[in-house]
Amino acid sequence: MTHKQLFNQIIQKKSFLCIGLDPDMERIPQHVKDNYDDPVFEFNRQIIRATEDLCVAYKPNFAFYEALGSKGWESLEKTVNFITRNHFKIADAKRGDIGNTAKMYAKSVFEKMNFDAITLSPYMGSDSVLPFLEYKDKTAILLALTSNKSNSDYQLKKLVTDDLVYEEVIQESTKWTKAKNLMYVVGATHPEYFESVRRWAPDHFLLVPGVGAQGGSISEVCKHGLNKQVGLIINATRSIIYAGIGEDFAAKARIKASEYVYEMEHILRDQGFV
Amino acid sequence: MTHKQLFNQIIQKKSFLCIGLDPDMERIPQHVKDNYDDPVFEFNRQIIRATEDLCVAYKPNFAFYEALGSKGWESLEKTVNFITRNHFKIADAKRGDIGNTAKMYAKSVFEKMNFDAITLSPYMGSDSVLPFLEYKDKTAILLALTSNKSNSDYQLKKLVTDDLVYEEVIQESTKWTKAKNLMYVVGATHPEYFESVRRWAPDHFLLVPGVGAQGGSISEVCKHGLNKQVGLIINATRSIIYAGIGEDFAAKARIKASEYVYEMEHILRDQGFV
Repeated sequence: MTHKQLFNQIIQKKSFLCIGLDPDMERIPQHVKDNYDDPVFEFNRQIIRATEDLCVAYKPNFAFYEALGSKGWESLEKTVNFITRNHFKIADAKRGDIGNTAKMYAKSVFEKMNFDAITLSPYMGSDSVLPFLEYKDKTAILLALTSNKSNSDYQLKKLVTDDLVYEEVIQESTKWTKAKNLMYVVGATHPEYFESVRRWAPDHFLLVPGVGAQGGSISEVCKHGLNKQVGLIINATRSIIYAGIGEDFAAKARIKASEYVYEMEHILRDQGFV
Repeated sequence: MTHKQLFNQIIQKKSFLCIGLDPDMERIPQHVKDNYDDPVFEFNRQIIRATEDLCVAYKPNFAFYEALGSKGWESLEKTVNFITRNHFKIADAKRGDIGNTAKMYAKSVFEKMNFDAITLSPYMGSDSVLPFLEYKDKTAILLALTSNKSNSDYQLKKLVTDDLVYEEVIQESTKWTKAKNLMYVVGATHPEYFESVRRWAPDHFLLVPGVGAQGGSISEVCKHGLNKQVGLIINATRSIIYAGIGEDFAAKARIKASEYVYEMEHILRDQGFV
């Protein structure tokens, strides 16, 4: 999916919501575990069916599938195949490895599994990212400023140039060939940094985790994060997929997702996008 | 495996060699692909049988298995189960994610697959590493200074404290609770940095990639990298596992591994370890 197509989806659905698909066996409703051979896929299937008109993207975090071994990997493959082509499919894998290995990851995620995008750690530099940028209409989403508490350990350290490490990550990478195929992860838990992010990456989409269970605010993020193409995909995971624990978990997920979309639609109207 | 047990293995085998198990379908010998249902496992099995008395560790890079989907994941599980308990089993996964996700990865790699260690990216800070350090007798191997060319993009940037980013990674992390369960990745392609690494991490083991295909030298690394417990695991992958492409590929791998071990034994004798 191109970023233009993503923008069109946002306008059409009046939503820039991404839903994380992190199925934790300890939190999947009991009746799903009791009645299905592949409860992970069934859980995802019901969440997707209940929310697909509300969100523009889905983001399975690979850890939750890998924890289940090869069977989990199968559930992941079935899940990505089940998501419609009108959704931006993000492999939340946070990979980062040397060139020949990066190529293998790109092949796995973009060719074998047909994801539209993958999250990547920038620590190893351009070698580890460029192979992903080679793909037409695919996106590499670089961790810039993450939503967790210990982002201050390294991302917020100041360089001699006076820039913070995460700012350097954005500045450097926007100079790479095919940098237009990049997006950046910027956590909603730090809305005060969006102004600086937009200084270095005015045109890129940002993937924003940290709303919901982690406490970030959609309106605060939008204040400095929106650009002319909206430029934001805001993700929520636990607050949606674990909104309910009974047989109505998918309906509960839909209600929670609708709340976010209500707020997003309001913002899109205010800003004249719809 | 504890670090003391690893040291004992090094002394017993007179080797601190780690062999990377990165089976690339394009490079696996044709006769293996033609005659086995699971050529990836069969390739690894023969490499392991031919080299297990020569090395103290094996390190499968997850990318090469994930590229094959759930079937690749099965080959990985079979491979790790096939490696003896006297080898330090390193999951080269370079993971790094927020706390609840890190827990899932730890469960997957340490409990489900019984690896002894996992490589991790430090970019997201302590949250993303501490769950791995909770495991008794398991090791988190933090990327510090990697062997690839673009390590200079971020790892070698200078902070206002005058330290380089990778030095900060080592300094900060050695202060964490259970930091004794850490090791660091330091590439052989930069032997000049080992002195600084040893200033901040005098007692930790270092996992050293970059020998062989990437051009690093064992003797140069040892000059400043050795400590009282040897403290080095030097990895080679492509130069060993792709030493041959015919039916004798495993024998060729053994010959190449023996060359490294010959050099290592010489160094261990010189330094009075054996």
